[in-house]
Amino acid sequence: MVTNKERKTGKQSNNDYSNLKTLFLNCTIKPSPEVSHTQGLCEDVAKVYEKEHGIKSDFIRVIDYNVPSGLKSDMGNGDEWPLILKKIKESDIIIVGTPIWIGNISSVAQRLFERLEGTYSEGNKENGQYPLYNKVGGAVITGTEDGGHFCAKTINFCLYRFGCTIPPGADCYWVGLAGAGPSYLDAEGSKHLYTNRTKRTLVENTVFMAALLKENKISTNLLEVEKKAVAESRKSNEIKWHG
Amino acid sequence: MVTNKERKTGKQSNNDYSNLKTLFLNCTIKPSPEVSHTQGLCEDVAKVYEKEHGIKSDFIRVIDYNVPSGLKSDMGNGDEWPLILKKIKESDIIIVGTPIWIGNISSVAQRLFERLEGTYSEGNKENGQYPLYNKVGGAVITGTEDGGHFCAKTINFCLYRFGCTIPPGADCYWVGLAGAGPSYLDAEGSKHLYTNRTKRTLVENTVFMAALLKENKISTNLLEVEKKAVAESRKSNEIKWHG
Amino acid sequence: MVTNKERKTGKQSNNDYSNLKTLFLNCTIKPSPEVSHTQGLCEDVAKVYEKEHGIKSDFIRVIDYNVPSGLKSDMGNGDEWPLILKKIKESDIIIVGTPIWIGNISSVAQRLFERLEGTYSEGNKENGQYPLYNKVGGAVITGTEDGGHFCAKTINFCLYRFGCTIPPGADCYWVGLAGAGPSYLDAEGSKHLYTNRTKRTLVENTVFMAALLKENKISTNLLEVEKKAVAESRKSNEIKWHG
Amino acid sequence: MVTNKERKTGKQSNNDYSNLKTLFLNCTIKPSPEVSHTQGLCEDVAKVYEKEHGIKSDFIRVIDYNVPSGLKSDMGNGDEWPLILKKIKESDIIIVGTPIWIGNISSVAQRLFERLEGTYSEGNKENGQYPLYNKVGGAVITGTEDGGHFCAKTINFCLYRFGCTIPPGADCYWVGLAGAGPSYLDAEGSKHLYTNRTKRTLVENTVFMAALLKENKISTNLLEVEKKAVAESRKSNEIKWHG
Repeated sequence: MVTNKERKTGKQSNNDYSNLKTLFLNCTIKPSPEVSHTQGLCEDVAKVYEKEHGIKSDFIRVIDYNVPSGLKSDMGNGDEWPLILKKIKESDIIIVGTPIWIGNISSVAQRLFERLEGTYSEGNKENGQYPLYNKVGGAVITGTEDGGHFCAKTINFCLYRFGCTIPPGADCYWVGLAGAGPSYLDAEGSKHLYTNRTKRTLVENTVFMAALLKENKISTNLLEVEKKAVAESRKSNEIKWHG
Repeated sequence: MVTNKERKTGKQSNNDYSNLKTLFLNCTIKPSPEVSHTQGLCEDVAKVYEKEHGIKSDFIRVIDYNVPSGLKSDMGNGDEWPLILKKIKESDIIIVGTPIWIGNISSVAQRLFERLEGTYSEGNKENGQYPLYNKVGGAVITGTEDGGHFCAKTINFCLYRFGCTIPPGADCYWVGLAGAGPSYLDAEGSKHLYTNRTKRTLVENTVFMAALLKENKISTNLLEVEKKAVAESRKSNEIKWHG
Repeated sequence: MVTNKERKTGKQSNNDYSNLKTLFLNCTIKPSPEVSHTQGLCEDVAKVYEKEHGIKSDFIRVIDYNVPSGLKSDMGNGDEWPLILKKIKESDIIIVGTPIWIGNISSVAQRLFERLEGTYSEGNKENGQYPLYNKVGGAVITGTEDGGHFCAKTINFCLYRFGCTIPPGADCYWVGLAGAGPSYLDAEGSKHLYTNRTKRTLVENTVFMAALLKENKISTNLLEVEKKAVAESRKSNEIKWHG
Repeated sequence: MVTNKERKTGKQSNNDYSNLKTLFLNCTIKPSPEVSHTQGLCEDVAKVYEKEHGIKSDFIRVIDYNVPSGLKSDMGNGDEWPLILKKIKESDIIIVGTPIWIGNISSVAQRLFERLEGTYSEGNKENGQYPLYNKVGGAVITGTEDGGHFCAKTINFCLYRFGCTIPPGADCYWVGLAGAGPSYLDAEGSKHLYTNRTKRTLVENTVFMAALLKENKISTNLLEVEKKAVAESRKSNEIKWHG
């Protein structure tokens, strides 16, 4: 683990983080092989994971898979969500990438979160933790003009609710001026200072946190939490509500 | 630190976390001594910190202080924000409590975040980290009817942007049925199972994460991040924007 | 049209509004014939349109149609969006119904808005108005616990951007207490005072506004707006951006 | 009123709208005489009201008034909110202007909406309508980088809930590229095509709608709505809630 001594030297850690697995879930609404600007920014972030820490990233372009709407981890009928969920469970760092549409995360990103609801019922038998516990989350967003902050807060809210830890600066985005305009790739967004700063901060902080959690699993026992919560709460059939 | 062995036993850690400092920033819009339902829930959360981990909490009811609008860490003229900021800097766990008004965080909570903008310019000289780095954040919310999720995402977004880490389940809230109705204390919200479950999850996960970060400071050097980001970005005066 | 004299009598108007067309776009993520609680509340709202004003409503359960992701009004390959869009264009009142998932509108509702983007390019040749101009919008929302306000603001924001007018009180929702719990139909939400109050306010105000706009089309000429805006703006190729 | 015949000519109406009163509520967090970029854009919008329709606008810079937090229409102790509320009640068009801070409306704007809560209890004795009924609302937003959509939806949601009607295109904003950068005035935002297009659309549509509502008051009787809603709802003391 990174020690305080290393930190005080003011240098980036030279630790070997290359065993960490990073997964990008690109939620563009455009199927392959259409150009996805969100894919473009995701790949630029992935380059930093590799160059700075030797971490190779996996990519899933969700719309290329058969992922029907639903709330269960397997909706049957050729549902390919189980494939995606398996990849998610194997990863240490989960980055959700979304374009912005009408100020919101894409319908594909929202469906991703709906499907992740199914993981609430897959708690670990020993401690009740959901499958995304001990993983680290972050957001990558592109749009032509506006909505980066809102999409970042939506993505990271969903991720920490499902079990991820969100480190400082866990979002990276590019948007242009108010109104329609060129998108990330067309605007040469890869040369935009703010995006590059947040890209690198996202990488450094997710890597640090993922390595830390890999060696120090969260100790919370949600089964005990539940037991104590039940003990101090009303029994449901005794509740009267004066609405 | 908690070891994997301890985790596998399925017990809550018995480690001594009592040196951790927790600060509740209650952003009610009602000055003392009016009843604040948000204060009520904050105190219920604080009881868990104390009972489960021996952690005593500090409380700041922001509206009781002279905190003018502004973006600097000291606006002068009797500005009491520096007192609050000092407490924030001394804490390991920062819980922002807010009531919900028209679906949004309170004006007092929003002003808190505006004032925290000043911390962006107080980066550590050695590594550029903002003062809230290596702290853990969370949200406590009460309302009569609706808006818990939105306020949680807003609070935790602001906190991770200022440097906090957000662990899983880092929010606890109580709201009643759609429409006006009794508030937390009047509705005996302290007996509501969901609120008690999230209250205890919030406590366990913030304590775990704060202890972990106290012994393992984030290694990211934001000064190096900046240097590299500048090197790969356009010089500002060469940019042409075709809007 | 309703006159001030009628208004002053304090009675609901007895005008014949039965020629107004109301369309409910139910954005549940559950295909027929599964029970949709959002459908339940939509039907309760529709009963008021009929009972109070003799207006019969149309219903579209979007997920029952083949509506692929995309931004054009026809994506080809059996895209059934054109059928839905035709219905929308024929309606005077457009009510978008959504369940709440993770605090957000459903993925189906978000895809609806993405598809409506296509209407931006279908401006009327004489005045440039988009197809949804002179229509009235509103929102119906159900959830087990939280998020009504946020979903209402998201839906009505999209609708007024696409051309709808949003009258006062243009949302109706039902949610239960914080945390998982029964949904609208199971909780007998149709007997909940707040929901019934907003249901009736939504109906009265959308009917009034739709009748008013049917006889008094919005006079704004967006082609002239554009001409004047261009005249007072920079030419794009002269812009230098110092980012 | 504008007739369909006029509309079909494709010309802007030549009607005399100069008796309409427009009020800008600028919610900058900077007191006078500091430069407010939001004031800059508000004034640019006001120029269009005057030039196109002869409408003179009033401006209130809320932070220059003593407006304490609270939920009542008069909090006493020199509370100057009643002065502002009086102006609001006298206006036909209400434009809320806000800067964006951390992706949200300013604390001053949020406090404005908290204070407007008091108007819920000032229903008209004959029809129960709140004081903002029959008025038209809109939003003006400036920021350095991001958040225009979210602030627009927040402002217009609050306004339609308090009684305003929101016409199509009822927001105008300017933001720059992702990340810190120049604000509206420094960036010569007044020459930005998108902002100018939305500025003029906002003006045309609010003027049309305000004139229409001035001659055709909303007929909804909220007292009758309440009576019918009560009749079809549970009596509160009979409700059992199984949470």
